[in-house]
Amino acid sequence: MARNKHPEETVNLILDVAFRLFMEKGYEHTSIQDIIDQLGGLSKGAIYHHFKSKEDILFAVTDRMTAESNQMLAVIRDRTDLSGKEKLKTIFQESINRPVQNDIYTIAPDFHNNPKLLLSLLHETVEEAAPNYILPIIRQGMADGSIQTDYPEQLAELILISANIWMNPMIFNSNEEDSYRKFMVFRQMMQGFGLDVVDQQMLDRFQELASIYQKNK
Amino acid sequence: MARNKHPEETVNLILDVAFRLFMEKGYEHTSIQDIIDQLGGLSKGAIYHHFKSKEDILFAVTDRMTAESNQMLAVIRDRTDLSGKEKLKTIFQESINRPVQNDIYTIAPDFHNNPKLLLSLLHETVEEAAPNYILPIIRQGMADGSIQTDYPEQLAELILISANIWMNPMIFNSNEEDSYRKFMVFRQMMQGFGLDVVDQQMLDRFQELASIYQKNK
Repeated sequence: MARNKHPEETVNLILDVAFRLFMEKGYEHTSIQDIIDQLGGLSKGAIYHHFKSKEDILFAVTDRMTAESNQMLAVIRDRTDLSGKEKLKTIFQESINRPVQNDIYTIAPDFHNNPKLLLSLLHETVEEAAPNYILPIIRQGMADGSIQTDYPEQLAELILISANIWMNPMIFNSNEEDSYRKFMVFRQMMQGFGLDVVDQQMLDRFQELASIYQKNK
Repeated sequence: MARNKHPEETVNLILDVAFRLFMEKGYEHTSIQDIIDQLGGLSKGAIYHHFKSKEDILFAVTDRMTAESNQMLAVIRDRTDLSGKEKLKTIFQESINRPVQNDIYTIAPDFHNNPKLLLSLLHETVEEAAPNYILPIIRQGMADGSIQTDYPEQLAELILISANIWMNPMIFNSNEEDSYRKFMVFRQMMQGFGLDVVDQQMLDRFQELASIYQKNK
């Protein structure tokens, strides 16, 4: 008799296999059939019961990564030992340094071929990350005097769109030199808002990620 | 005997009809069949010979608008009576004031349902508009002393991504109040780069466009 697995176990199994294959071969070079072949007898129908397309699987894989990193963002947001401005710097540091970034840049989806993924990242940035993580930190900074602005929601959005979309090497196919130059302009923009929150270590790491992407795309 | 039209005449006829219908009914509420019905006997096959989908027709309609507005941008770029900074201000003014903006916000495509359109706008912004129109103006400003930056390409991109994507009411469904607040943060960003180039008249016009969109979406 076949084991009566819970559906979430099946979904997790599919995502585990897909994640590993995306890492090994890259997203563009992995087919749905490749994923099925590694699922030990799970039928094509079983996959399509849970996911409409390979792009759908990619969404689920990145959602799982996002959920993990949001945990980390929430911990920083809720600390009581830092000013708003210090939290902003910490959140940039921790975000760029976390190892899952290497995984994302290794999977290296081509946004040109996956416009829905771009739309999803744009909306996750503006409708989830900005209001839930950056906005509360900016509000704290306004209260403790470390950040000055009259428009915290919009400042949170502009900062994250710049960092997550414009500076994203996977969207604009940036190399290390492009990434260096974007980083310098981003730093100047932040300074214009009185936010001196990026440093050399972040620049080095940012260039490293661009380089990982260039090797894997 | 049927007239032997040139293909570009057929394409222009399709685009004229599609543009008028998009304006009257909105993009989302216009079907390919609506367009065919108004083409006076042109067959479905003739349309699909030139366009794969309704989205393809929208691309062609917006390309035609973009070509017209690029003419205007080129004229400003090539003037000899203005400093780089003055040209930047003029280009913002003329871009937001041109009547075709009313048409675009009346057609009001829903970017959520048309991710390829977003990708196309993003790449037109970064790969066409920024290098061809904003970059030469920034370079002139560096030469005449009216603009200071070490990274003209990246500054051009960041300015246009903010203005064309983040501030675009059609992408983020902004109302007049959101648009006011985004404009104020954008103004502060520009001032941080030493670029005091936006004014009250632009703000009024920007809010007017958001209001046109809210009425037509």
